[in-house]
Amino acid sequence: MSGGCPYFEERHLLFKNKLHLKEEPADDSQEGINKASKGGIIYGNYLQLDKIVTSQVLQSELKGNKIHDEHLFIVTHQAYELWFKQILWELDSVREIFISGHVRDERNMLKVNTRIHRIVMIFRLLVDQFAVLETMTALDFYDFREYLAPASGFQSLQFRLLENKIGVPDNLRVPYNRRHYRDNFKGHESEMLLSSEKEPCLLKLVEKWLERTPGLEEDGFNFWKKLEVNIFEGLSFEKNKIERMQDSEEKEEMMEELKKQRELFTSLFDVKIHEHLLSKGERRISYKALKGALMIYFYREEPRFQVPFQLLSNLMDIDTLMTKWRCKLFWLPLPALYRQVCPVATGRHILLHPRDRYKVFVDLFNLATFLIPRHWMPKLDPHEHTFLFTAECCDSSYCSSEDSD
Amino acid sequence: MSGGCPYFEERHLLFKNKLHLKEEPADDSQEGINKASKGGIIYGNYLQLDKIVTSQVLQSELKGNKIHDEHLFIVTHQAYELWFKQILWELDSVREIFISGHVRDERNMLKVNTRIHRIVMIFRLLVDQFAVLETMTALDFYDFREYLAPASGFQSLQFRLLENKIGVPDNLRVPYNRRHYRDNFKGHESEMLLSSEKEPCLLKLVEKWLERTPGLEEDGFNFWKKLEVNIFEGLSFEKNKIERMQDSEEKEEMMEELKKQRELFTSLFDVKIHEHLLSKGERRISYKALKGALMIYFYREEPRFQVPFQLLSNLMDIDTLMTKWRCKLFWLPLPALYRQVCPVATGRHILLHPRDRYKVFVDLFNLATFLIPRHWMPKLDPHEHTFLFTAECCDSSYCSSEDSD
Amino acid sequence: MSGGCPYFEERHLLFKNKLHLKEEPADDSQEGINKASKGGIIYGNYLQLDKIVTSQVLQSELKGNKIHDEHLFIVTHQAYELWFKQILWELDSVREIFISGHVRDERNMLKVNTRIHRIVMIFRLLVDQFAVLETMTALDFYDFREYLAPASGFQSLQFRLLENKIGVPDNLRVPYNRRHYRDNFKGHESEMLLSSEKEPCLLKLVEKWLERTPGLEEDGFNFWKKLEVNIFEGLSFEKNKIERMQDSEEKEEMMEELKKQRELFTSLFDVKIHEHLLSKGERRISYKALKGALMIYFYREEPRFQVPFQLLSNLMDIDTLMTKWRCKLFWLPLPALYRQVCPVATGRHILLHPRDRYKVFVDLFNLATFLIPRHWMPKLDPHEHTFLFTAECCDSSYCSSEDSD
Amino acid sequence: MSGGCPYFEERHLLFKNKLHLKEEPADDSQEGINKASKGGIIYGNYLQLDKIVTSQVLQSELKGNKIHDEHLFIVTHQAYELWFKQILWELDSVREIFISGHVRDERNMLKVNTRIHRIVMIFRLLVDQFAVLETMTALDFYDFREYLAPASGFQSLQFRLLENKIGVPDNLRVPYNRRHYRDNFKGHESEMLLSSEKEPCLLKLVEKWLERTPGLEEDGFNFWKKLEVNIFEGLSFEKNKIERMQDSEEKEEMMEELKKQRELFTSLFDVKIHEHLLSKGERRISYKALKGALMIYFYREEPRFQVPFQLLSNLMDIDTLMTKWRCKLFWLPLPALYRQVCPVATGRHILLHPRDRYKVFVDLFNLATFLIPRHWMPKLDPHEHTFLFTAECCDSSYCSSEDSD
Repeated sequence: MSGGCPYFEERHLLFKNKLHLKEEPADDSQEGINKASKGGIIYGNYLQLDKIVTSQVLQSELKGNKIHDEHLFIVTHQAYELWFKQILWELDSVREIFISGHVRDERNMLKVNTRIHRIVMIFRLLVDQFAVLETMTALDFYDFREYLAPASGFQSLQFRLLENKIGVPDNLRVPYNRRHYRDNFKGHESEMLLSSEKEPCLLKLVEKWLERTPGLEEDGFNFWKKLEVNIFEGLSFEKNKIERMQDSEEKEEMMEELKKQRELFTSLFDVKIHEHLLSKGERRISYKALKGALMIYFYREEPRFQVPFQLLSNLMDIDTLMTKWRCKLFWLPLPALYRQVCPVATGRHILLHPRDRYKVFVDLFNLATFLIPRHWMPKLDPHEHTFLFTAECCDSSYCSSEDSD
Repeated sequence: MSGGCPYFEERHLLFKNKLHLKEEPADDSQEGINKASKGGIIYGNYLQLDKIVTSQVLQSELKGNKIHDEHLFIVTHQAYELWFKQILWELDSVREIFISGHVRDERNMLKVNTRIHRIVMIFRLLVDQFAVLETMTALDFYDFREYLAPASGFQSLQFRLLENKIGVPDNLRVPYNRRHYRDNFKGHESEMLLSSEKEPCLLKLVEKWLERTPGLEEDGFNFWKKLEVNIFEGLSFEKNKIERMQDSEEKEEMMEELKKQRELFTSLFDVKIHEHLLSKGERRISYKALKGALMIYFYREEPRFQVPFQLLSNLMDIDTLMTKWRCKLFWLPLPALYRQVCPVATGRHILLHPRDRYKVFVDLFNLATFLIPRHWMPKLDPHEHTFLFTAECCDSSYCSSEDSD
Repeated sequence: MSGGCPYFEERHLLFKNKLHLKEEPADDSQEGINKASKGGIIYGNYLQLDKIVTSQVLQSELKGNKIHDEHLFIVTHQAYELWFKQILWELDSVREIFISGHVRDERNMLKVNTRIHRIVMIFRLLVDQFAVLETMTALDFYDFREYLAPASGFQSLQFRLLENKIGVPDNLRVPYNRRHYRDNFKGHESEMLLSSEKEPCLLKLVEKWLERTPGLEEDGFNFWKKLEVNIFEGLSFEKNKIERMQDSEEKEEMMEELKKQRELFTSLFDVKIHEHLLSKGERRISYKALKGALMIYFYREEPRFQVPFQLLSNLMDIDTLMTKWRCKLFWLPLPALYRQVCPVATGRHILLHPRDRYKVFVDLFNLATFLIPRHWMPKLDPHEHTFLFTAECCDSSYCSSEDSD
Repeated sequence: MSGGCPYFEERHLLFKNKLHLKEEPADDSQEGINKASKGGIIYGNYLQLDKIVTSQVLQSELKGNKIHDEHLFIVTHQAYELWFKQILWELDSVREIFISGHVRDERNMLKVNTRIHRIVMIFRLLVDQFAVLETMTALDFYDFREYLAPASGFQSLQFRLLENKIGVPDNLRVPYNRRHYRDNFKGHESEMLLSSEKEPCLLKLVEKWLERTPGLEEDGFNFWKKLEVNIFEGLSFEKNKIERMQDSEEKEEMMEELKKQRELFTSLFDVKIHEHLLSKGERRISYKALKGALMIYFYREEPRFQVPFQLLSNLMDIDTLMTKWRCKLFWLPLPALYRQVCPVATGRHILLHPRDRYKVFVDLFNLATFLIPRHWMPKLDPHEHTFLFTAECCDSSYCSSEDSD
């Protein structure tokens, strides 16, 4: 980049040289004066490092028997809490976009997706972080574990808040030692938890958004009705085809199979079954939201659904990574010992059935159950169904406030 | 899930029981008959494993001195080649979507993005794969290296094809040992390379697509003109503000800085400078495409630009990962020895200036150079500029062919 | 590095310039002759790429309906098989070192550890590789899945061999569809499996090696006896301490706890309990090997046990990663559909109880159960117990054959 | 595990039920009392979370224009600093083991290796952590960047301490803005830096340890002399072989190559050349230490050198990861903008020549330059050279203090 064109050297970034010049005084004769503080913010002050890097107090050292590895234990969990803080920051901002109705302006979808994706990336980092903790063997951990006992107070407030705000339901949470999870926290913290349970969680906000999925309108595209018709026509067609086959064991099997498919889809279109599963906690979103999710899932290539489909994927990623994390916890070489003091585990029960209980967006995972051949999907006519090409426009009053975030 | 509702057990997946029944014959009295082959495809045949897992022939063994680690060397590079095959498969399909004009139907953008993202994920895996090769020390490598010499024939055809199809330009490629890179390949392979140089590369296809970015029309939104006006108004406003300051060293510095900014932006709006940089290979896309990219970059939150913005990000990811890969190669504990036989490195020169030479989407990285305060961006009126909310609809003739991929 | 000392430029590597010169003929007038092949091995021939990259045949394409993503499915599994080949290569070589008795020469421990570690790194890569497969959604998979059905033949021979050679016991393997796993394979392959079941697996070889752990000799250090004495003295001491406490609920609890510890350790020193657990498959190694493992675990800081301790860690890593892999498989967004054709899963049962059933080195994980306070460990006197500082020397007859690997 | 043997349930871990019982009071009628604090340490207090999670103050918010992404910027850097604290903790403890001479007791090598490896794992995490920061685009960063300017105070004290304690030499550090790096820090911090420069750094401690490598003794194995003899005999043998060949271009080339090898090895055995390179900073350890490193490198399979060889590998890993980190920084999508405020970069210069300048263990990387055919290595006789099988025993006075960590 030397010579030739002087205009495009990196240093010409806007405002950049301003910094540059301040940093590089042509002649600084005031030797001895603290140059660092001159006119700007100091890194250590900005990050409040006086607090951050002085908060490592070893219990073992206090008790007169300093155990080297306790420092790692402390720093690891402080790093977890820092990242929980960040996740809560992103989660609250996303919830605010949903709550305020700003999500209706589809321009905000990028923001929502970016922030949910960031939460996913942080969880991924937290899973990777185990690799550092794993450099501590059970023997090393054993040396200082006793100083932390009893560990009933070993609960992470932020992680419980996080679970509540995403949508882990209170009634599904396994009581730890027969005690309600909130009883492990003090007054103010207990109140924060209670209040987080009452606020709309991400799951409920996504549910409301899914219910508004364009294409569900009965007087419009009427996706659900069309889908039902197509599926049962398809099944009948398949049935006729099989019936024309020569009798054989294979024919019988295929007929058997078809019967089961019919049962599966009959159940999909039966709202009562949905309500039943909801009541058992095996489904978590409303019937209408389920329809919306399936619509997005099937038509995810349509311009208007590409970004919503990504949101669904990102939400599933959160679940997958939180599970992966618990799974990792379960396999940690510091076995039962650590899980007892690990603030993330609400007791051991969480780990026994890692699969279902704490999964929040279980309905999104279930969508794959209802896969159908592509040609059974209700056809879209781009000239008629323009909603798939046209994003919702914000009204002007809202637009003026968009900068406020 | 036990009891209650029998309809939603996992096994009721469509067609699933059909598989199930076939696999589980109630009574299979034909003992001795090969059950595996019954009526279905065999895993090993499907994957042609007779070829895949029998292709590891150690040169050291042929020469009578079997070196254990040569096997790792072979398998590692075969795995690379398998994944190159996959990358070419995705790359060709994406290029086909662009070449055929199918990309105009914005429904295909999800496909394009998914496949480019897949290429990124594969490159990420290839970088991770170094961790396996790193279990071989230089000493181990040394033991069989001589059997591979001379390594002039150690060039990966597929990797060169890949570079050509993405858009590594022939004239920027450093000649290795004063020989054109294509001379290292035989007749048919040499022809494949030549033909890949002549086909439209991904860079050129993306360029054409960027040139069509809605909003650039001079008789429409006319982004470029509006942007130029806003920037220079902004700069004048800043200038006035500074001039009203009291004289000081700081004022001088700010004025100096402002002058440089004016030069930077003057250059941005000067097509001749662009052409000059193009001729030197420091820019790679047309002026119009650059305008389109900047439009997408600035308005990436608008519904219609969210997915295009992701495409730009994914394209940059390819560059970043390919560089990371070369960078990794450079730091491998098997130093000069390996780089000589490594098919990915086109000679050592590639590594000396890993930064610029082989970067394809350099213009996208440069976009960050032209950041401006948010309020300098031309305002959009959602009621007037509806193109930002409305995706391009495919015409019916095209729609009918969409299933063919 | 220019100037000054000409001796240390990178190009002076031994034999390096020889390569260099050959690659760079000063004058090559034989235009048209294939320069690549001149005197050396060709990359593509060496790797047999004509076989590797031409083995991707899409069933969907054969059936007249090419589905783009089937290519990814094929390549992914071919890459798995390539790496299985490599794992088997390492595993066989490690087993050979154990079987031949070369492991007695402790110089071979580095080799063993390096190769076991390499297997771990490959498994880690295979877990990472899921990230590529995850770019394929269930919907995409659905499009070609039917061409692979029925999937009873979808079993990876190499993975089954791998399991057998590591030590997954036949009687613990869950029958898939009521059929023995070996019945899914043809004659020659079935024989290979049978023979791999009969060869000594890694677990059994490690067991024999553990049984020889120095320090177990009853007429020597007699670790086991000393340990038993120390532990029960320690427990008595604790008991006395508790008995001197004032009566309280806490005292009762502590006494209760102590009783349980006594039971735990009584069981540890009872060979009959060990035999019982062995018969149930809950322990997998002999009593003597268990003693050796605990000896290494407790004295892992002693010079002679540092490398053996790493071997134990690496073996546990294999288990952890294989479980992580199954766990990952379990959470793949391609749920039941994929698991049916996935060659790694021996049916779904493997996944329902991922925790215990297929874990091979379960005894090593259990060592953490028997942690004791550091001061209960039998004391070593470095002047007396020199075996901890002195590695076993090979005898000369063996030494002469050491180069053969 | 149910039934049968009651002795081996997980809950029987030593002391475990004690915890258990305390956590699970059979009847806790004291409703309202804070159960969490009962008799134990509280998680939040232990980790001082009141300080950790309240230290995120956004400059943009203080200035009245809250920018969402500044929070991520703060948390990311606080997490870096937490981990730097941990690295310093490990590094100081390792240096202490070397300084105190405890490293002579080879039982401490496991501790040293484990802690160096932990530092490597933390650096690996820090590299991964970029993936989170990368979710912030240059546009987002631009929005709050101005609030941090000027960034001359943006220097991480801990990172500079870290560099000093590992062994980045002061004279090789590029002055940033013509100012000594230490001038960017205030009185106390500047003193800490000065003092860290004066303490023995890891590089120097490793150098001293390498100089004591057994086998170097001139009146013993005398590795260096034997090696010199063997190499030049080997070269002569090669020369004779070539001279007997028929005249040809190839013969000339090989002779040319041989000449260069002779020069390379002549230089290796010339202490003056070593001193010259030392003075230029191209080598960093003494000639004797270099001999020791090469001895370990060549005989790494010998029992006594297996763990030392791992230490060398781990030390190289630190360098590799620190470079990878700087490399990553260089490629971050937040380009020049971020690097100016990034505390890790000491100015941009660090990045222009990432390769050599800051590499500490450069001599270890260079070992690969001196590879020789295996049969040129001086032969060891296990009966004579017992030092390779016998670790150094600690004296009893030291042993008694080994528990003090």
